[in-house]
Parts: sequence; C-alpha cells; structure tokens
Amino acid sequence: MRIAVDGMGGDRAPKEIVKGCVDAVQEFGIEVILVGIQEQLEEELKQYPVDRTKLHIHHASEVITNEDKPVQAIRTKKDSSLVVGLNLVKEKTADAFVSAGNTGALLAGSIFKIGRIKGIDRPAIASVYPTQKGISLLVDAGANAECKPRNLLEFGLMGAIYTEKVLGKANPTIGLVNIGTEEGKGTDLIRGARQLFYQQDLNFVGNAEARDLPKGIVDVIVCDGFVGNVILKLTEGVAMTMMAMLKEQFTKNIVNKLGAALLMPALKEFKKTLDYTEYGGAPLLGVNGAVIKAHGSSNGKAIKNAIRQAKTFAEKEVVQMIAEEIKKIGDEGNGE
Amino acid sequence: MRIAVDGMGGDRAPKEIVKGCVDAVQEFGIEVILVGIQEQLEEELKQYPVDRTKLHIHHASEVITNEDKPVQAIRTKKDSSLVVGLNLVKEKTADAFVSAGNTGALLAGSIFKIGRIKGIDRPAIASVYPTQKGISLLVDAGANAECKPRNLLEFGLMGAIYTEKVLGKANPTIGLVNIGTEEGKGTDLIRGARQLFYQQDLNFVGNAEARDLPKGIVDVIVCDGFVGNVILKLTEGVAMTMMAMLKEQFTKNIVNKLGAALLMPALKEFKKTLDYTEYGGAPLLGVNGAVIKAHGSSNGKAIKNAIRQAKTFAEKEVVQMIAEEIKKIGDEGNGE
Repeated sequence: MRIAVDGMGGDRAPKEIVKGCVDAVQEFGIEVILVGIQEQLEEELKQYPVDRTKLHIHHASEVITNEDKPVQAIRTKKDSSLVVGLNLVKEKTADAFVSAGNTGALLAGSIFKIGRIKGIDRPAIASVYPTQKGISLLVDAGANAECKPRNLLEFGLMGAIYTEKVLGKANPTIGLVNIGTEEGKGTDLIRGARQLFYQQDLNFVGNAEARDLPKGIVDVIVCDGFVGNVILKLTEGVAMTMMAMLKEQFTKNIVNKLGAALLMPALKEFKKTLDYTEYGGAPLLGVNGAVIKAHGSSNGKAIKNAIRQAKTFAEKEVVQMIAEEIKKIGDEGNGE
Repeated sequence: MRIAVDGMGGDRAPKEIVKGCVDAVQEFGIEVILVGIQEQLEEELKQYPVDRTKLHIHHASEVITNEDKPVQAIRTKKDSSLVVGLNLVKEKTADAFVSAGNTGALLAGSIFKIGRIKGIDRPAIASVYPTQKGISLLVDAGANAECKPRNLLEFGLMGAIYTEKVLGKANPTIGLVNIGTEEGKGTDLIRGARQLFYQQDLNFVGNAEARDLPKGIVDVIVCDGFVGNVILKLTEGVAMTMMAMLKEQFTKNIVNKLGAALLMPALKEFKKTLDYTEYGGAPLLGVNGAVIKAHGSSNGKAIKNAIRQAKTFAEKEVVQMIAEEIKKIGDEGNGE
C-alpha cells in the first residue's frame, strides 16, 4: 500500500505534513510518497529517524495556494504537488492521495486527472459530522452548490458505501435533510430526490430535520452542497460560540472559576468530541480513485489520521464498489 | 391600541394564552381581543381579576389544528379563531394579531384575508436569532422554500425596517447567507440577490458565512426559507445536544457534580440566552397588517412578550414604512 501525500498543501505545510507522514509510515506499515519541493521536504525530514525505503520524496516544483483559482491552477501549474500527486494515483504508482491544500483545486484536479466513476454525474465531498452518538457522514459538504435529484441519490449511495466500508457501520441509514418530516414538505429538489431514493433498494429512512442531526439521527446525511456547507459551518460556529459564552460565565467570579476548574477534565473530554484532528479528512466520493481532503489547518496528527483513512479507503475498494452499485441503478433520474 | 389574540392556537391553548393576555392587559395598558370558543375562554378568565373593559372575548366556533392543511383549513374553517382574528385586523377592529397556532395556516390566512403589501412578491416569516452579541433577525425562517433573487431583496429590506423599528437597532446591517465570503461563490440565487442588493441604498454588507452567524456578525440574516429553517433548527439542535452532552459529563462523578453545582447560576444565565420565551414571536413581514406568530409551545410569558412585540409592530407603523420603501425600489429584479 502506497499513499501519496501533498507535501505543500495546507496552512502548516510542509512541517506538519512531513511529521504526519513520518508517524504514518511508522505506525501503519505503509509506504508514503511525499510530493513537493524536494529541498524543503528533505530539510524537514532530516530531523526524523525514518525508514527511507518506505518514505519517498517525489519532486514537484510548483505550489497551488488557497488563493489560486481551482480550474486555472490545475491547468497552469502542471508541476504542482497537487497535480503531480493526482497523476501518481492516475498511473497507479500510488493507491490514494491526501492533500490539505486548495479544496476546489483538489476537486477539479481529481475530476480532470483521475476522472469520475462511470455513472456518477457529480462527485461530492463527504465530511464526518460529530454527533451525540458518535459520527455521521455528510454528503455533499460543499462541492455542488446546485444539484438535481439524481445527484442527491448518488450522494446517498456513495455515502452509505463509504460509511459501511471505511467508518465500519453495518447497513447505515440514509436521511435527506428537509424542513419538517412530512412527505409533501420541502423543495422540488427534495421531493424529486425522495422519490428516486424510494425506488432503490437502499436503507433510506426519509427526511431528516436539521434539529435532529446533532443527535445522530441518521448515519448518512444527504443534502446539496450549499445546505451541507451551511450545516457544517453553522455547527462549528454554534459550538465555538457556546464554548466562548460558557467560558465567559466560567471566569466571572471566584465561585465560577472554582467550578470550572473542577470540570476542566470533563470540558476537555467534551471538546475532543468536536476536534477535527481526531477524524482524519474528507473523502472525495465519485472520482475514480481514493482521494482525501485533509483540513486546511491540519497538524501532524490530523495528517496521520487522514493517511490512515486513505489507506482504508483504498484497501476496502470503495471506488470499485461505488462503480458496481451505480451500474445497478443505471440512468435512473439522470434525465431530470 | 387593540391586539387580537388567537385563544385556541398553540400546544397550551387556551390556558397559557389567556394567562398571557391577562398579564399583557395589566402591564402594557392596551386592549386585548381574545378570539375563540367563548365558553372555554370565559372559564379560564374567571380565575383572574382583570379589567373586562380592556379584555374582550370575540367568539369563534372552530379551531384550526396543527394537523390541518393550511390552505384548506383557511377555506373551510371560516369561523375559526385564526380566520376570525385575521378578519378583525382586516376590518381595522384590531391593530395587530398574535397566534401560536398552525404556522402555514397563519401565513396563508394572512395573505388571503389581509393581503400582501403592494410591491411585495412573497411575504416571509422573520425569526429572532440569539447570538453572542444579543439578537439578529433571520428572514425567511421557512415561509418560502424556493425563492428568486428579488424575494431575498425584499426579505432584507423588510427585515432591516423591522429590526430598526421594533428591535431598536439603528441602521442595521444586512448580510446574505453564503458558503464562503468571496464574490463569485454560491448559487445563481445568491449571485442574483447580491447584485440587486448592491443596486439599492441599503446597509448591505455582502456575504455572511454560517460559521459567523452565532457571533452576531450581521443584524439581518437573509436567506431562502429552506436554508433559514435549517439554520434555526440546527442552531437549536446543536445547542440542545451540547447541553445534554455537557450534562452527562457534569454528573459523571462527585468532583464533576460539585463543579457543576457551583456553576449552576452561570449555566442558568446561559440557558436564558437561548430561551425563546424571552423574545416574543416571529413577525410575518410583507402582509398588510401586523401579524405575529408565537412559538407553538408558548407559555403565558411568551404570549405576553409576543403581544408587546405586536404592539410595537403596529405602533411604529412598520407595515406603512415597508410599503413606502418598496415603492422606491419598484419592480427591480421582478422579471427574473
């Protein structure tokens, strides 16, 4: 198993990326191909006693930044770590690719270089969503702001396969984000998608209200990329704001401070539930290879976890399984 | 000032509704017309020493329930408290109407009976959104799942007027919910609406990311009713789930319990920020009268606060001001 990693992508590259790769090689017994500016990567690598027959550097002279326009960057920066890494997957030199870089460029690059799975109209970004019960998977997290019903069906199918194979939940439930749980509610998009879901042999449980998502009411949360991005960002925003407001209360006077001190371990435990570094990264579903988008501010631990996730993504043959299942569904709803 | 109140709408009607009306009459020096089944309302009223020259009962023999289909209910239950109450506003017997009943029926009934303000394409429901800084106003909270750019412009205009006149914020900022803050991001709807906003002389500050809404980044949050409903429900869901998860931590062992006991006043203070009963209800904006939707589970205090809000809504002539301002905007974007 060989995982390619974008050595130059993310706010803390290359330092934390290299650190994550070193740990991954040591812990998971895999090979890692670090892609990026050789000199910089070697400089970072010097400080670690790592088996260099397992951690390779593949030189790429250019870097795609977060300010770059995705499609343009893919076209013009052909020797960027991101494009070169994707090419390694395309030509089967690597089994998967992890990048903490420009999300749009990673998505566009994956579609251009690796291609879509046959039968998938729109690849999506899936994101782990922390809940009271553990985790759910949200698809689409922001790749497709505007969708057709068929796209939502694909998101549900792909999300369920990933959840079962990589997150290890048997027969995961699929729910469609809607306002209210009644049949007739929502938009044309939602009504159309629901109909398509009911025609398939999937574990589709109908509508999921936003209020119930944090409780973990469904395993796979399906929505368009606009709503999905709002859900992810808002959840993060509400949690952070609540913590800030609580903190304010907790330091107001000496009694509160004492109480908060006693609760510190409990609060830390709680914060951990919301910590993205625990969960690795966001898989791109629907492209013809295992690609993981790590959080832009990933530290070494987050990168290491993303590599583990990429390993499982490739090992469990998720891409092949999506290809097989989408074939069974055929063109259902693709004319809409 | 005379406010009509739906005596039969809401989970706790008529008991808590009557209680709220009695308190409102005593505290605000206004008249209240309680609309509903006379016998039941009289029975409740008996227990309070209230000035009956100020608290009137207007009999209505039917009740619209939450299970009723909105449009059908308005057409067939002509003698329901909801329809009769709206008619009181229409014929100027009452200056405003408050109901904790069926939201869809209240909206449809307001449009059919009272009518829209000239120039407003789609009336909306506005909801107070609690933030770290205080409150924002979110429009649309769920009346219009599918929108055109022009609708969002109207929501922003109406929301700003209501925020200034009723919530008492001078020159409120208006923000458009989007994914990312860049110009080109989002959907056709968002891009179209942003263009319309920039053509007007409004305090429009551009995109607002969902992550920043709980911080109170804008005074008026503009979005379509689908996204708005997701935002409201998800915020509630995340807050409730976090409180439940914290509570679990807080009772885990004796040290945590002690810490939590010391913090109890702080936690209560915090919970109050999220308490809907403090904020009254949700105004219907764009109909030709002051109509407030109170929370379905409103207690007496919530109803009293909703009546105070209805009073300000009518006193400050919000409806007239919306009519004047929308005339200035004209048909801009209405062809789209």
